[in-house]
Amino acid sequence: MKIAILGGDGFCGWPASLYLSDEGHEVSIVDNLSRRVIDEELGAQSLTPIRAISERRAAWQEVSGREIGFYRLDVAQDYEGLLQFLLAEQPDAVVHFAEQRAAPYSMKSARHKRYTVGNNVNATHNVLAAIVDSGLDIHLVHLGTTGVYGYGTAGMKIPEGYLDIEVTADQDAEGNPVETHRVPQQILYPTNPGSIYHMTKVLDQHLFAYYAKNDSARITDLHQGIIWGTHTDQTQRDERLINRFDYDGDYGTVLNRFLMQAAVGYPLTVHGTGGQTRAFIHIRDMVRCVQIALENPPAAGDRVKIFNQMTETHRVRDLARLVARITGAEVQMVPNPRNESAENDLHVANDTFLDLGLQPTTLSEGLLLEVEQIAARYRDRADLTKIPATSLWTTKHEAGVPANAPDRPGPRHAGGERARRTQT
Amino acid sequence: MKIAILGGDGFCGWPASLYLSDEGHEVSIVDNLSRRVIDEELGAQSLTPIRAISERRAAWQEVSGREIGFYRLDVAQDYEGLLQFLLAEQPDAVVHFAEQRAAPYSMKSARHKRYTVGNNVNATHNVLAAIVDSGLDIHLVHLGTTGVYGYGTAGMKIPEGYLDIEVTADQDAEGNPVETHRVPQQILYPTNPGSIYHMTKVLDQHLFAYYAKNDSARITDLHQGIIWGTHTDQTQRDERLINRFDYDGDYGTVLNRFLMQAAVGYPLTVHGTGGQTRAFIHIRDMVRCVQIALENPPAAGDRVKIFNQMTETHRVRDLARLVARITGAEVQMVPNPRNESAENDLHVANDTFLDLGLQPTTLSEGLLLEVEQIAARYRDRADLTKIPATSLWTTKHEAGVPANAPDRPGPRHAGGERARRTQT
Ligand SMILES: NC(=O)c1ccc[n+]([C@@H]2O[C@H](COP(=O)([O-])OP(=O)(O)OC[C@H]3O[C@@H](n4cnc5c(N)ncnc54)[C@H](O)[C@@H]3O)[C@@H](O)[C@H]2O)c1
Ligand SMILES: NC(=O)c1ccc[n+]([C@@H]2O[C@H](COP(=O)([O-])OP(=O)(O)OC[C@H]3O[C@@H](n4cnc5c(N)ncnc54)[C@H](O)[C@@H]3O)[C@@H](O)[C@H]2O)c1
Repeated sequence: MKIAILGGDGFCGWPASLYLSDEGHEVSIVDNLSRRVIDEELGAQSLTPIRAISERRAAWQEVSGREIGFYRLDVAQDYEGLLQFLLAEQPDAVVHFAEQRAAPYSMKSARHKRYTVGNNVNATHNVLAAIVDSGLDIHLVHLGTTGVYGYGTAGMKIPEGYLDIEVTADQDAEGNPVETHRVPQQILYPTNPGSIYHMTKVLDQHLFAYYAKNDSARITDLHQGIIWGTHTDQTQRDERLINRFDYDGDYGTVLNRFLMQAAVGYPLTVHGTGGQTRAFIHIRDMVRCVQIALENPPAAGDRVKIFNQMTETHRVRDLARLVARITGAEVQMVPNPRNESAENDLHVANDTFLDLGLQPTTLSEGLLLEVEQIAARYRDRADLTKIPATSLWTTKHEAGVPANAPDRPGPRHAGGERARRTQT
Repeated sequence: MKIAILGGDGFCGWPASLYLSDEGHEVSIVDNLSRRVIDEELGAQSLTPIRAISERRAAWQEVSGREIGFYRLDVAQDYEGLLQFLLAEQPDAVVHFAEQRAAPYSMKSARHKRYTVGNNVNATHNVLAAIVDSGLDIHLVHLGTTGVYGYGTAGMKIPEGYLDIEVTADQDAEGNPVETHRVPQQILYPTNPGSIYHMTKVLDQHLFAYYAKNDSARITDLHQGIIWGTHTDQTQRDERLINRFDYDGDYGTVLNRFLMQAAVGYPLTVHGTGGQTRAFIHIRDMVRCVQIALENPPAAGDRVKIFNQMTETHRVRDLARLVARITGAEVQMVPNPRNESAENDLHVANDTFLDLGLQPTTLSEGLLLEVEQIAARYRDRADLTKIPATSLWTTKHEAGVPANAPDRPGPRHAGGERARRTQT
């Protein structure tokens, strides 16, 4: 298959590109390298020493004998470039990772909110418009998030994208009253996003639903849990192929942050009560799931195929305890900067991928290896000042931050960034 | 009240500004005049001779003794300008009309799709981000559309924004099986937008839901039917205050197009079977509804208040017959460029506005007046070549356009606009 990977220089996109190339597909990466620019904005960098994209590609060619194309292009802003790329490459499938993906980053300031909305919505819409405009029959695979479901379920497993409901009907087609009866329906699962970032994934869903309906676009949306782990078989073949590992307060996902904290002897900081349940998946399973999705496209005219791409759920405090037990680190509770319920349950159906042959890597097997191979090995590169989460979800009293917190910022007036809270 | 009207130079925004000013409110208009620029792009113009915004404001001051402020500003692109405007004006409420609002225009080409998505999503998100950023307690009133509900209902009246559903639950909080039971829930009404334009209003809804939840923003979303009529008491006071009347294939809404066609002796062109049911409201009732919404804001922390702002529903072919009966015009059936069901029913609840005192102007009373005062009076200004709808919803066979239509365009390749179909 000819596969274009949008966002192929990123944490998920790079290992997915290598894996699919290794499987014999013809892979091209499109990326504007914005994630590397954000590293500079934040003064943070990957714990692992990632190489320039040119060096990455050269190393892969050396190691595998296979080429991966690269196009530096802003998918959200350069529509003509994107269209020309599709017409020139004629890919069978496009895998779309090219979005700003950190919830804390999306909440930092009005500028960050606006960047996240503008980048993500326009990137997704441009891809859809360009696929239709090109006249090519391209299967689009997008990475969404289990976060669109909101955190918490009412006595049921979260299904894969669509929810069976019943509504009460009491009239006929002309609007005349008839006996009250229940009508079954299936709808997109109602959303309750927890941040601006998550909200952009809700907007994406509606763009997909529309283009599938109006233009018979073939679309798969993978509602992915939080990725953990760093290496895949391919990234491990040469150190120049190493994947990024983020541990900073914005991009470091919860488990990677814990591993890093443990490795450097920093207490594991748990927000609030740590009662929030999150869905997880190992990076090796992610690349495999993307492949499975590519092999099982919807037909033209089908609704959007939605898979839940996760293998385990855990409460944050339980994860912290697990990492503490393995590593001997301490656990420390700090105020939650997010505006969310303190405790929630989350049960997620993932039958589709299991039925299609996914063999999950479990936390309990993989975790120790990850500590040794990544967090401990590269700990000297760590900048401890970057670990705390500094983005505040809201300045309102109702939020997770106590009103009497010493450095609670007021609303901003004319010019200047809002003061930021540092959790240390 | 101090009220900012975003999009106050438009078809709805201008009469709303005059009405609210007349009611004693302090009104400022923000508009980038993009609608006037689109007139130039389309080579179309309002049937009624609308004046420059400066002349409109001067005339209003002359006639009423009241001033209306004006700021030329692109709400979607000039965030800093918008924030400074809010901080300087400190409005109690913002009424947000500033979006690209024509479904056919939104479907003309990839460029028009992208403009509509970029303009509408960024405008709405900028307004929300700026309200939060300003720290001011501003009530936001937005004009949405009954089109978000999709066309067609399953045996029930469409409620005002939120739908009561039941889901089947079968586990406890820990995920252990319990007896199957039904759980009632109330959700945002599931959407089924009929065009890119309508889809942007779906995206708006999710932006509102998020900001109401996370930032306790106070938001009212008016799901408005198709406006008909032109004059209000205020716009009639002086010809320089006249409102716009669009009759072209992009911006002319169905009823205004029929009135125009009748006035110039052109057959009333009905798309498909004309079996699509649409919701309508007179422009006088629109301005009154906006006022009622302003007087009944939600409290901070409430969910978004959603009102259905419409007073009647009609099938398109019945409207054509009504206009034909009044005017003696002919009715002509032409292929439907839209990708939609040929026939649908639509029953919409509008209790909130009726309870709050709205006295609807009905089509059967107002229609003849409209023909005489507008369509017949200004018919010499009409450009008949602009009447046909030329935007095609899709190039796929399944769509409303018969596959054997003589000038059916193929998909576009590299450069150039897609060929367009003209219905004459
Ligand atoms: N990492 C996770 O735990 C996780 C979990 C769920 C979902 N996802 C989703 O998976 C996708 C990839 O996430 P990731 O962790 O690899 O993020 P990442 O930031 O490491 O990678 C995203 C890549 O996209 C590129 N990009 C962003 N905007 C672009 C644009 N406009 N044009 C071109 N390139 C652009 C960036 O430069 C970066 O290389 C995202 O959509 C994310 O929401 C990730
Ligand atoms: N006209 C109808 O029948 C109808 C029906 C339902 C809903 N609505 C909604 O009501 C609102 C107003 O509709 P209308 O008929 O008055 O449309 P219109 O095009 O006549 O007016 C919109 C105004 O907003 C301005 N505008 C657009 N984008 C802007 C931006 N980025 N910055 C600043 N100004 C901008 C335009 O210049 C124009 O003056 C729209 O949101 C529309 O979706 C209209």
